[in-house]
Amino acid sequence: MSHAPRPRIELWFEFASTYSYPAAMRVEQVAAEHRCEVVYRPFLLGPIFRAQGWDNSPFNIYPVKGRYMWRDLARICDELALPLQQPSQFPRNGLLPARVACAAQDESFLPAFVRSVYTANFANDQEIADPSVVRQCLEGLVPDPDAWLQRAEAPEVKARLRANSERAVALGIFGSPSFVVGDELFWGNDRMENALRWAAANSTRAAP
Amino acid sequence: MSHAPRPRIELWFEFASTYSYPAAMRVEQVAAEHRCEVVYRPFLLGPIFRAQGWDNSPFNIYPVKGRYMWRDLARICDELALPLQQPSQFPRNGLLPARVACAAQDESFLPAFVRSVYTANFANDQEIADPSVVRQCLEGLVPDPDAWLQRAEAPEVKARLRANSERAVALGIFGSPSFVVGDELFWGNDRMENALRWAAANSTRAAP
Repeated sequence: MSHAPRPRIELWFEFASTYSYPAAMRVEQVAAEHRCEVVYRPFLLGPIFRAQGWDNSPFNIYPVKGRYMWRDLARICDELALPLQQPSQFPRNGLLPARVACAAQDESFLPAFVRSVYTANFANDQEIADPSVVRQCLEGLVPDPDAWLQRAEAPEVKARLRANSERAVALGIFGSPSFVVGDELFWGNDRMENALRWAAANSTRAAP
Repeated sequence: MSHAPRPRIELWFEFASTYSYPAAMRVEQVAAEHRCEVVYRPFLLGPIFRAQGWDNSPFNIYPVKGRYMWRDLARICDELALPLQQPSQFPRNGLLPARVACAAQDESFLPAFVRSVYTANFANDQEIADPSVVRQCLEGLVPDPDAWLQRAEAPEVKARLRANSERAVALGIFGSPSFVVGDELFWGNDRMENALRWAAANSTRAAP
């Protein structure tokens, strides 16, 4: 007797994104509660924002919205008992850790690495563009952090991140976190449960 | 023995706003479940959007975001069993019904009127700037719909709507629906429960 495969939900995320921090920290647990599996899809928001004429985070371009977001994020983190420290630099460049995540796309340590990078950025106010910070995020998860930093620079890994970012545009993604379930797109930490209910309700069960 | 006053939550709303439709339709029931009272604050988003350099809804200016919004709204309405018809004109000018809502701010029929206008716009694809549509929204709720249409044009009512819209800016409001509980601002239909939990948890109980 074989087990039916669990319904899959894709988490599309950018390491600079604020609401993606609580999303990344809780997605594994919430997905498990819905008996779903998370597929991690790192991408870059910068090119998408630039295509809309923004050269910065909309939370910086529209300060009223930015002030609200930081307060809203603080309430969300309070409710989840997650530490939050408003980064002294926002947004930070998430290119390097996104490439590491692409290099590690089939590795079981990937979810823990993703949480570690978000924690560095939003709980510890660390510069996630700095290789030494990314190395620190890998320590304890892999025996050879430096090898992963090297793999992140491989041409096929760089191409994978570019392909992800182009695929994000094709899927209609315009913000992070986004969840993709089949043909359905859900945007925002606050849509995680909706996306998971959709995945659980619309999955085809394999025969035993 | 007197009853303690119920915690109050302010619903700030613009009749053109899409996510305000499900919010307006469900707020009375959800507030009652949290033993809270809703105070209706109509305002206009147009001046706030113009101050940010937008001469249209951001859902029209950013079509990718607009496409997502209509799909997301359809899913939300499905879940609530609310009819939804994408308006043939979007956004519609909500000035007249907002003035009627200001004129009726102390009337018990106000919640039903608000729901009726949103239903006209988003379920029936009716032009809510048209006085005959607004009159229809008042029919069955008041014995004298035309008197309310006249009251909507009184200088003090127009001034009240202007004052609301200025107060919205002062409160840091940038979208609809917004909820205000004491000093806390919550934005979006998806923050209604958070706002109500905040109101219920932070209210001062009056002595019996």
